Amino acid sequence: MQYPEPIAKLIEGFMRLPGIGPKTASRLAFFVLDMKEDDVLDFAKALVNGKRNLTYCSQCHHITDIDPCHICEDKARDRSIICVLQESKDVIAMEKMKEYHGLYHVLHGAISPMDGIGPEDIKVPELLKRLQDETVQEIIIATNPTIEGEATAMYISRLVKPTGIKVTRIAHGLPVGGDLEYADEVTLSKAMEGRREL
Amino acid sequence: MQYPEPIAKLIEGFMRLPGIGPKTASRLAFFVLDMKEDDVLDFAKALVNGKRNLTYCSQCHHITDIDPCHICEDKARDRSIICVLQESKDVIAMEKMKEYHGLYHVLHGAISPMDGIGPEDIKVPELLKRLQDETVQEIIIATNPTIEGEATAMYISRLVKPTGIKVTRIAHGLPVGGDLEYADEVTLSKAMEGRREL
Repeated sequence: MQYPEPIAKLIEGFMRLPGIGPKTASRLAFFVLDMKEDDVLDFAKALVNGKRNLTYCSQCHHITDIDPCHICEDKARDRSIICVLQESKDVIAMEKMKEYHGLYHVLHGAISPMDGIGPEDIKVPELLKRLQDETVQEIIIATNPTIEGEATAMYISRLVKPTGIKVTRIAHGLPVGGDLEYADEVTLSKAMEGRREL
Repeated sequence: MQYPEPIAKLIEGFMRLPGIGPKTASRLAFFVLDMKEDDVLDFAKALVNGKRNLTYCSQCHHITDIDPCHICEDKARDRSIICVLQESKDVIAMEKMKEYHGLYHVLHGAISPMDGIGPEDIKVPELLKRLQDETVQEIIIATNPTIEGEATAMYISRLVKPTGIKVTRIAHGLPVGGDLEYADEVTLSKAMEGRREL
């Protein structure tokens, strides 16, 4: 005997999600069976609505429910700076900081020749198009400090610099609250390299 | 700025599940946004159907989509043995073994005075009722080898033994593939106690 059909389907559904194996999936499925029906309905609706009502902003490619997104629409934001990020999640992280008031551009990936991902596969051409507008004076490249992120940053900066727009890269160094003893040598070397006068 | 409304709701939905915090929830939510719409719909349907179409078997209290459940209905099964388990999940585990052909009784919990759970809060009265039927000759108590599981086993065996029905408990000992070196002393003591002649 296997699980009754409805629960087998539910387990299957959970198993499609990343990082969820058969054991966790069955634990979650049994939990759902004990949940209030209204909560389950809300969750199911949220799944479908999330998929159906979300789209990507035609300007910055951040995930949004209206196009252009809240950030691109916001008249109070500084239109002369664009922060370039790899993922929509990174926009959320930046916004949590509450200190950046410019615009964003989400690449949806990074250049990775090993995986066959070139500049055309991510939103690099769209970024270059946005830069033709003369209001932009600086782009801050905040791709991840990984090989792919660095390659993407280098690629974009080489393309953009000749146009006269200032290109900056966020600082690498020790994370706040981190411990020098446990920092890896690359981070430490970047932290030394990026040292500033006090 | 927070997440757009639809994704915030989806993250909230995931966070209601056990073992899923804000970070995992947002990872799962973003994964859902990249899934095929049909798959998301199937998953949402599975959630609602799982909740709506599943019920508990009126005889053995195992989770089922038809009542009585497949196992209780199966004429080929031995009606003289009932295996008593704590959870529906345990039935699945037993059935995977493919060696037990009797019936089941799911208690949906274990006696735990510390948590205020007495025999009436789990399906003990229902079990005693089933035993009035004279076909039952043996009950195998397969509650978990925990304090609560043992207490439940003791309680049931004291009630049932006087009726002349054979009451057995599954063996405790070293798990197959386990390592004696890493076995805790209680398991080891149970394994010694339950030793059998070769």
